[in-house]
Parts: sequence; C-alpha cells; structure tokens
Amino acid sequence: MRFDIITVLPALLESPFAHSILQRAQKKGIAEIVVHNLRDYATNKQKSVDDYQYGGGSGMVMSIEPFAACIEKLQEERDYDEIIFMSPDGVTLNQSTANELSIKKNIIILCGHYKGIDQRIRDIFVTREISVGDYVLSGGELPAAIVVDAVVRLIPGVLNDETSALSDSFQGELLDAPVYTRPADWRGHKVPDVLLSGHEAKVNEWRHEQALERTQKRRPDLLE
Amino acid sequence: MRFDIITVLPALLESPFAHSILQRAQKKGIAEIVVHNLRDYATNKQKSVDDYQYGGGSGMVMSIEPFAACIEKLQEERDYDEIIFMSPDGVTLNQSTANELSIKKNIIILCGHYKGIDQRIRDIFVTREISVGDYVLSGGELPAAIVVDAVVRLIPGVLNDETSALSDSFQGELLDAPVYTRPADWRGHKVPDVLLSGHEAKVNEWRHEQALERTQKRRPDLLE
Repeated sequence: MRFDIITVLPALLESPFAHSILQRAQKKGIAEIVVHNLRDYATNKQKSVDDYQYGGGSGMVMSIEPFAACIEKLQEERDYDEIIFMSPDGVTLNQSTANELSIKKNIIILCGHYKGIDQRIRDIFVTREISVGDYVLSGGELPAAIVVDAVVRLIPGVLNDETSALSDSFQGELLDAPVYTRPADWRGHKVPDVLLSGHEAKVNEWRHEQALERTQKRRPDLLE
Repeated sequence: MRFDIITVLPALLESPFAHSILQRAQKKGIAEIVVHNLRDYATNKQKSVDDYQYGGGSGMVMSIEPFAACIEKLQEERDYDEIIFMSPDGVTLNQSTANELSIKKNIIILCGHYKGIDQRIRDIFVTREISVGDYVLSGGELPAAIVVDAVVRLIPGVLNDETSALSDSFQGELLDAPVYTRPADWRGHKVPDVLLSGHEAKVNEWRHEQALERTQKRRPDLLE
C-alpha cells in the first residue's frame, strides 16, 4: 500500500512516519509513505502556493495550480484509488472507514492550511473528504498522519500480534475492559482478585461485563 | 501555558512541535511544550515500562510505576490543572473542549501504547480522558499532538490574524463556505461570479447561504 501526502510542511511529518508501527511497516515493505512538498510544484517565481481569497476576508487560500501539478504528475506514474482531502468539513473518520481504506492500493492525501484550499481542487480532484474530528487544527498534516496510522496498522503483517488489531476498542463495538499489570498491590491500590484467580472463564466473564459497563456509561451510542 | 507530555516515543513528537504555529507559539513564549521520555522513569534495570497483563491475553500493559514517578516529579515543580490520558475510551474532543483547555495553565498529557495502561493510573492520577475520534491508533502521541495544536492556536497572540480562529468551522456552529483564489478561470472551471462582483453584502449573503447549505448537507447534527 502506498500513501502520497502533499503538504506545504513536509518537515512536520518527518518524525511521525519514522517511528513505531509506521516505521516497521515501511521497513517490511508493506507500506510506502511518500511526502511531497507542495512548494516544489509552485508555478510562479515567488514559489507561492496561496493567494488572497476572492470576495475578500482574512486568511489566505491555497491555489489550485500547484496541487493540480503534483496530483497529475503522480497520476501519470500510477493509478490512485482515492484522493483524500483532510478537512473539518469532511466525513468523520471512524474504524469502518479505516478498515475500508486498508484494502486500497494507492492513496493521495492533500493537506490544507490557512483559510482552506480553492474549492475547485475539491470539486475536480478529491474523491473523499475526511475529518478526524470536530475541532480546528493548524493544518491537515496531523490529520493525515492519523489516517495513515489508523489504516496501516490494519494491514496484515504490520502488527506483531495478529490478534491485537481485532481485539481493539471499536473493532468489536465495545470499549476495552480495564487492564492491569504488576505490581498486584501499588501503595494499597490492588488489582481485582478475579484477574489473579487463574480462572479463565471467570476472567473472560469479568472482562465482558466491564467492557459492557464502560461502554454503557461512556459511549451508549456504540450499543444502539 | 505549559504542556508536559509523557511518552515512550518522544522522538515521534519532535517534528510536529518544531514547525508552524506550535513553533511560533513557543518562540513567542506563549506556549511551552516539554516531552518526557517515560523510560527515564523506569524503576527496574531493564528500563522496561510495560509488562504482561493480569488475567492473560495478548498485548502488553504499561506499568503504573514509571508514570507515577514522572507525574509526581512534575507535580513537585508546579501545580497542574489537568492530567489528561489520551484514549479511545475518553470523551471525544470537540471545539468547546479545546476552548475550555486553552484557558488552563499547566497540563500533563499521558500517551498510552500497546494494550493500554494500568487502570490504576487512570483511577488515581488522571483528571480527564480524551479521545480524538472513534478509531484505533498505534499510540497516544499523535492524539496528544492534536490536542496541543487545537488548544494552542486558540491562545490570544498565537495566530497572526486575530480574526482567523473565530471564523473557523465549528466556532460559529456552521461549516465554512467554499473559498476561491486566482486564477478566476482554471481550464474552464470558474470562480462564482458573486465573489468577483465587489458587492460586499451580496458576498456575505452568498457565503452564509453556502455555509448553511453545506452544513445542512454534510453535518445536519450541528444545526440541531
């Protein structure tokens, strides 16, 4: 699977893709993540990628030409399944979208900045607009990293323990039960007895009850 | 405002905090962001920060002791308004939570990994659990960066243009209207005439209609 991310701040994405699971997935050859500097596709001599917005108002708008040039160059090299624009206006990312994207082959992600991107980029090129949540961020870079992380970890072979991704919260529609590790007693705060009992059926029953209770209390919407 | 972020992967957070708005806020002295390596607080000679979970099952659980040692050291140095744990089980981040956090002074953020963190850390230390959305990620680092970005940009003096943050999507309960910049005609795709009219009242009316229409179509829940 290949991600091409187009951004004015390629350096911002250096460290998130160079560690942990994303690093491992790239080393194993399972995922390829290429970050493109939008400024390399600027057409004017100032290398500007934005301009004042038509109709007036504060905030610069990212121009269509550099995005078009970068997307069209990539499309000459390979076919893309999706061109995603990260935007607070988009469809909110959830686990089922992540599952769906994890079986695609080539994905372009566009990162916006400032007041936004020229609407024609969205109308002409973008196949899917994704929001990571109902909050405003400085740009689309961290949201792009979120999408890549959520998707890549689902590709078979990326996680060390094949069962891990399947038992995560949201994959089973219930939040996770509480987890504990040593010491069994920390300053008088003890691990629940059942987890120390060695009785597997009771442990499983307790975990299911706890997961259900936590979901009912915190996220009743997941049970509907 | 100060953020202390506790993580096993401090290097992952290097580039997101070193660019753009977060860099500017730190240079101006408006925000201080300190990343702590949890491994520096490991108490055993292997410097391990996790262990097998009680009751069995796949996935390691992060131990209470290193977190407790790091948190208690920080609490000796200053008072903290919040100790936030990034978790898919938490309350979903939205713009009003970001607004609320932007007036705090000192915040600790704990990043989880693997199967989760010992429940006693959550019970004893954590004041608030925040999720950035209904999807599973490799760890709490990108979510922590999201929280810091969403919050810091709201602090007065961080954004260059004081009006920018207030006119963002979600601050006014409507999504943004489409924006356009030059050229007015790109391969036959034209900017709407009204934006070129120079008639301010008509532009504002069009933008309000477009924002309302986009919100009705994409996020009717925001209008309820």
